[in-house]
Amino acid sequence: IESRLPHVGTTIFTVMSRLAQECGAINLSQGFPDFNAEDLLFERVAHWMRAGHNQYAPMAGTQALRAAIAAKVEALYGTAYDPEHEITVTAGATQALFTAVTSCVHPGDEVIVFEPVYDSYVPAIELAGGKVVRMRLAAPDYRPDWDAVAAAIGPRTRMIMINTPHNPTATVWTRDDLDRLAALVRGTGIVVVADEVYEHIVFDGAAHASCAAHSELAQRSLVVSSFGKTYHITGWKVGYVLAPRELMAEFRKVHQFNVFTVNTPVQLALADYMADASRHLGLAAFYQAKRDFFRAALAASRFELLPSHGTYFQLARYAGISDLGDAAFCEHLTRAVGVAAIPVSAFFADGRDEHVIRFCFAKNEATLAAACARLAAL
Amino acid sequence: IESRLPHVGTTIFTVMSRLAQECGAINLSQGFPDFNAEDLLFERVAHWMRAGHNQYAPMAGTQALRAAIAAKVEALYGTAYDPEHEITVTAGATQALFTAVTSCVHPGDEVIVFEPVYDSYVPAIELAGGKVVRMRLAAPDYRPDWDAVAAAIGPRTRMIMINTPHNPTATVWTRDDLDRLAALVRGTGIVVVADEVYEHIVFDGAAHASCAAHSELAQRSLVVSSFGKTYHITGWKVGYVLAPRELMAEFRKVHQFNVFTVNTPVQLALADYMADASRHLGLAAFYQAKRDFFRAALAASRFELLPSHGTYFQLARYAGISDLGDAAFCEHLTRAVGVAAIPVSAFFADGRDEHVIRFCFAKNEATLAAACARLAAL
Ligand SMILES: CSCCC(=O)C(=O)O
Ligand SMILES: CSCCC(=O)C(=O)O
Repeated sequence: IESRLPHVGTTIFTVMSRLAQECGAINLSQGFPDFNAEDLLFERVAHWMRAGHNQYAPMAGTQALRAAIAAKVEALYGTAYDPEHEITVTAGATQALFTAVTSCVHPGDEVIVFEPVYDSYVPAIELAGGKVVRMRLAAPDYRPDWDAVAAAIGPRTRMIMINTPHNPTATVWTRDDLDRLAALVRGTGIVVVADEVYEHIVFDGAAHASCAAHSELAQRSLVVSSFGKTYHITGWKVGYVLAPRELMAEFRKVHQFNVFTVNTPVQLALADYMADASRHLGLAAFYQAKRDFFRAALAASRFELLPSHGTYFQLARYAGISDLGDAAFCEHLTRAVGVAAIPVSAFFADGRDEHVIRFCFAKNEATLAAACARLAAL
Repeated sequence: IESRLPHVGTTIFTVMSRLAQECGAINLSQGFPDFNAEDLLFERVAHWMRAGHNQYAPMAGTQALRAAIAAKVEALYGTAYDPEHEITVTAGATQALFTAVTSCVHPGDEVIVFEPVYDSYVPAIELAGGKVVRMRLAAPDYRPDWDAVAAAIGPRTRMIMINTPHNPTATVWTRDDLDRLAALVRGTGIVVVADEVYEHIVFDGAAHASCAAHSELAQRSLVVSSFGKTYHITGWKVGYVLAPRELMAEFRKVHQFNVFTVNTPVQLALADYMADASRHLGLAAFYQAKRDFFRAALAASRFELLPSHGTYFQLARYAGISDLGDAAFCEHLTRAVGVAAIPVSAFFADGRDEHVIRFCFAKNEATLAAACARLAAL
């Protein structure tokens, strides 16, 4: 069997989590919390299961959840998405991103991505027959270079995929970035895919600049978010997409034949749970405290910490500690030090290695303290 | 935005269920039960949620569920699939089928399907750039014509998609059919995708002939099944795929970037629940009783009932009742008679209309009786 993705192996998140488990290491690699969500959420799932809501939800998602999403988005970003035609619930943000690419990218189309880039984007584009055009977010500040983007846009450009707050760099794009992007795509048929799964995790009083809040970009964007990141349930695999009606019609054509729909009692429970906005509005402060705790605990180490403005990730340079490449260093950390992290080279197509690794701090303080004790001893 | 699926509208199952709801009709269209699954299953989900198993499962599925699937498959079909490399849990059978096609079909490859064909197959092939080659399952017995298949196989044939027990025709392929298929693909690189989601719903003492049980075909098959159909939880969207290691490696390359993984507490609960084999072994008798009840209740009607050998579907001709096309007749039935069904023309690319409609009898007897009273009055 001839591979459709000959250069692809197993995703780095699976590789590192598996190694962490084999080694009994503290797992700060794959991004997920080690604390539980609230019992109330589980009770709602149990309620809807017992009440007999276990058959197919409507293809685009339950009406209750779409209405709850619409209310949240309008309250936060001021844009009224029509639940009937402009909101679709997905089996996680990954499925949303894959389906967005599959439904818009034709063979030969160009898609602009920003490296370091989340590892699912490029294979999705390649499977659609698209050509990947890579922009660089350059260390140390990882800012987009809009002049370079302007130069990269051409007649074959079909899509630009952005991600803010950004994984793995923990940077947050500004309203000004969105204005630059809007100016570049004005008058073209370019679709924007905005991966905003960390929308509620922005620190130090900054505001998340959502494409859903940008009236011009919203007209051409598929905006992707995730319940897993927001409610500490990464393993439930539920996300959603916002898009103007015409774009959403194309998305749903593929969605219906990719997964058809998403777990019904979970959707109904999330609709109930979302009603209390403090649950997502409180997330930034919750994770900011963890970021501060983690950084303080590593202050005495020989790691050089880069800024973390959002997401639940922290980048670190280890030049003072080791000459190893970042993949080898992460393996060493996991095996010998007992802490797993992600090599940032995994986010570059050519394996570019800036000797930077990513820690996830979505953990209890005890976990972070134990990990930092090991890391500080290096 | 130029459509990637210009000829595709909304799936017929969504269209008919929506119409049924608008009209307050009894919904015998989309295939799903109107009775609930067992409380025990819900209790297991609640248990695993409360116990804190709410983060990402391993990419291929939890070890417990893969082990339980391996045990079931070996007990039923005599084939030992390695849970580590040869079993993957999916977000429903639809996602399994979509991912199977996406991971194997290259642009320009030919894929053989049998019409009437489930509506997700062809769009998946088209999105992969494949060419659909249609074989006919001809009324009234809907048997595959293996000589025609032999003639259709050529150097570009990459895949053959089969479905047994078959939706919508309710036919069941035999071991002999699989032997014919095996002989045709011997020595080629053709991959078989076997949609066996109704594997436990075969009537009148017949046995399901699984590709997983066919030692030769198993070597080249992706075998797809569904927990939704088996445990009355179509809305949970969990299925699985069996395949030899090399083929599964390609499947997982796409799976990891399509959905990554599947709801963790649900997987753990299903592993617990599967341990009692009577739960799937009892399904055939359970649905046979419903089939018999439904057919008896329609015996006095002017519908001509075709045989139903498996699945939870019943085909019916309505020549004695109406001259309408099957889509128009289903709309009329829904609006004026208060019973929704699926027009079988929706399973033909060219809308071929044999004046046959499909009823789903996965319903309580009271539901079936009420529907039949309306249908018999025609
Ligand atoms: C899909 S597993 C990876 C989770 C994640 O988003 C990350 O660790 O970056
Ligand atoms: C995915 S909704 C359709 C359910 C089904 O398999 C059918 O009705 O044939």
